[in-house]
This record gives sequence, structure tokens and C-alpha cells, in this order.
Amino acid sequence: MDNVTLGQYQLVYGAFSFAIAVMGAATVFLFFGRSQVNTKYKTAVTISGVVTLIAFYHYWRIFDSWSAAYIVSGDMLKVTGSSFNDAYRYVDWLLTVPLLLLELILVMGLSSEETVRKGTTLASLAALMVILGYPGEIALDSGTRWLWWGLSMIPFLIIMFQLIVGLSKSVGAQPQSVRGLISSARWITLVTWSFYPIVFVLPMLGVGGGKAKTAVQVGYTIADILAKAAFGIYIWVIAVRKSEAAV
Amino acid sequence: MDNVTLGQYQLVYGAFSFAIAVMGAATVFLFFGRSQVNTKYKTAVTISGVVTLIAFYHYWRIFDSWSAAYIVSGDMLKVTGSSFNDAYRYVDWLLTVPLLLLELILVMGLSSEETVRKGTTLASLAALMVILGYPGEIALDSGTRWLWWGLSMIPFLIIMFQLIVGLSKSVGAQPQSVRGLISSARWITLVTWSFYPIVFVLPMLGVGGGKAKTAVQVGYTIADILAKAAFGIYIWVIAVRKSEAAV
Repeated sequence: MDNVTLGQYQLVYGAFSFAIAVMGAATVFLFFGRSQVNTKYKTAVTISGVVTLIAFYHYWRIFDSWSAAYIVSGDMLKVTGSSFNDAYRYVDWLLTVPLLLLELILVMGLSSEETVRKGTTLASLAALMVILGYPGEIALDSGTRWLWWGLSMIPFLIIMFQLIVGLSKSVGAQPQSVRGLISSARWITLVTWSFYPIVFVLPMLGVGGGKAKTAVQVGYTIADILAKAAFGIYIWVIAVRKSEAAV
Repeated sequence: MDNVTLGQYQLVYGAFSFAIAVMGAATVFLFFGRSQVNTKYKTAVTISGVVTLIAFYHYWRIFDSWSAAYIVSGDMLKVTGSSFNDAYRYVDWLLTVPLLLLELILVMGLSSEETVRKGTTLASLAALMVILGYPGEIALDSGTRWLWWGLSMIPFLIIMFQLIVGLSKSVGAQPQSVRGLISSARWITLVTWSFYPIVFVLPMLGVGGGKAKTAVQVGYTIADILAKAAFGIYIWVIAVRKSEAAV
């Protein structure tokens, strides 16, 4: 069995509960906030709320799976034999990561053709990135983990290149009042998304057993909160500013 | 008992959880998106959301039934004696499949008489198709499965003929900007619905035991996601385009 300490168990437990609260709160905020933006940006805000709702659902499941895997008796932590299911994260990312890129594309308010073209390309690359990461995540040896990590990094880097270089012309065409915000949204995506490949490699860098498990779970949770809840609200702020500018 | 392996169990488990998330997300998206379309198309979008909501409910039940049928202890999978209930799917389809055809008819915006006539015919045929499939699904021998599959294929083929040939005149009368989209919606229906009779025959083609069970469950889940969630959002896109064209 793994050697998670009681303190580590409680830290992960708290992190998951925190994520449930943040994702639920962000969902409600975004669904109400949707009425404050122009029709043109409503879909971007709806998707932002849908992303945090999906994450809320999965953190609930992850929390339940974590609770069921251990039992605290006195100050002792015992494994119950029920295994902690990490696959929920990948099921979640398969849905939410492509949607996060669509939020950004939609709030830019490009032409229909450009929205469909850029949205399809970026969303497909994002799904591919998640699919390639999974075999590595469930692998036990470092070699296999590095292999899939490397393969998954290819779509990751293409997405980042598209965001920073491919979208720069479209960013330049944004209204003055939001140009800076939209440009930053790309950089926020780059920074928050970079957490994932870093967290992924922690177990391969000699961080062992319970410590690695805790670092991975807490690390992914922080990354999810930034990339989904914080990013979603940032998209909403852009949508509000653009709606105000259009009046 | 059946011989589902741990890997197969987890794949089906993950697919059901994925379906819950997708159907829930699509429902929320469609209910919010309803405000972005003209009054004339609101019913089509409401029904699209109702279909994914019904599927969300049934996938929750199917997921719980699957979880209750097996117990994972360590890396061993054991059957609990509680049997996996597949009848939920047919209860779901009896409701949702006629509604899916109504979505398509309603978003076309035909005259009241034509909507009622075509809607009633297609919805009745769809219900008949599901009812005729069920005795085959629960049958254990291939002969009985083939018999009901064949009977169920009769309304299936009539529906497809009606969609492709019977509706072609109405498609020609659609506004230029959505004619292609509506025409494609018929073909998307044909392709996604064809998954079902194919998945149905898998156990009759010598795909045995746990492998057949897994293929049927994952196959139906993918078909449901495409035919309900993806199709529903496609109907919403048509409704948005038609609303924009009308302004």
C-alpha cells in the first residue's frame, strides 16, 4: 500500500473540499453574471460556467473516492482496500480543457468562420493532449511516464504557440479597452496550464510515495482552480468590459 | 456469471461517469442557450435540453447499477449478486428518441399542420422501433435477438427514408444560411442512429462474454453522447443562425 500520512491525507481532503466550494461558487457566479453581458458573449460565459460545473461534479466524485480509500481511527490512518480513482481527472480534462480554449476564442468575438476554424483546431489538440497524458499517469515506471509526458507535450506546445503567436493578429484587432486583458488571458492560460506537466513529473523526480501522491493531488487541484474558476471569471470580466464598450 | 475484467469494469465505469458529465453539461448549456434564440425556435431548444436531462438521469441510474453489481477489492473484481440493470436504456430511448426527431422537425420551422403530421408519424415510428428492440436485447439466444433486431429495423428504415427523402422538399425551402446545416442534421441522425443496431448485433457476432458486455455498454454510451448531446447543441446552433438571419 502507499504510505500517506494522516497529515497528508487531511491536506488532500481539505484541498478537494476547497475545490468543491470554489467550483460550485464560480458556477453560480458565472450563471448569474451571464445576464450582464451582451448576447454576443453569452456563449463564452455559459461555457465558463459549464466548465466549473463539470469540475464541481468531478471534485465531488474525487472527494468521495479519496474518503472511501482511507479510514481515520484515532490518530491512525488505514487503507480500506477501496482504491482511489484518479481517472476522474482525465475524464474531466477531456471535456473541460477543449472548452476552456473555446471560452477564449468566443470572448474574442471573431467571425463565425474563424471561430469555428480556430475553435476546432485548438479543441482537438487539447483533447489529444489529455488522451496522450493518461497512459503515462497510470503507468508505474518512470520510463513509461516520461514517454507519454513527451508525447502529450507536443500538442501542448502547439496550442501554446497558436495562442501566443497564431492569435496575436486577432488580439491586435480587439477594442483598445480589452486588448490588454485578452492578451493576458493567453499568458494566464500558458502559466496555469504549465502547472500540469510539472505536477505530472513530480513522481519521476525522486519525490517518493505519500509525499508524491499528496503533491500531485494538491498540485492538480491548485492548477484546476486557477485554470477553470479564476480563468472563467477573468473571461467574464472581459465579456463585461466588451459589452460596456459596445454601448 | 459474466467474466468482466477489472480493466473492462473501469472502462465502462469511466464511460458512464463521462456520460453523466456530458449530459449534465449539455442540459445546462441548452437551457441557458434557449434565451439566445427567437421564440419560434425555443421549443426545439427546450426539447434538446429535456432530452439530455432525461439521459443525465438515466446515466446516473445506470452508473449506480453498474457500481452496485461489482466490488473492487485490491486488484480483484468480484460480482456482488446485484444484477446490472440495462432496462434503463430502453426506458430512456422510449422517451428521448421520439423527442430527438421532434427537435429536428421543430427547428425546421414548418407550418403547424406539417409539424404535427410529420412529428406524430416520426415520433410514433421511433417509439415502435425502441419497443421492438427490447425483447431482443434481453433475449439470451442469437436467434431471438436477430428476430427482434429485424423487426425493429423496419421502423428504423422507414424513419431514415422519411428523413432523407420525405423531408428533402422542406429542406429546400429553408433559408440559404442554414440549408446546409439542416441537411447535415438529417445525415448526422442517420449516422449516429446507425451505431445502435450495430452495437446491438456485437454479441451475436461471436464477440464473447466480458468483451461483448463492455463493447455494448461503451458503444451505446458513445452513440448516446453523439445522438443526444452533440446533436442537441447542433440543433441549438441552427436555431441561433436562423434567429440571426431573421433579424
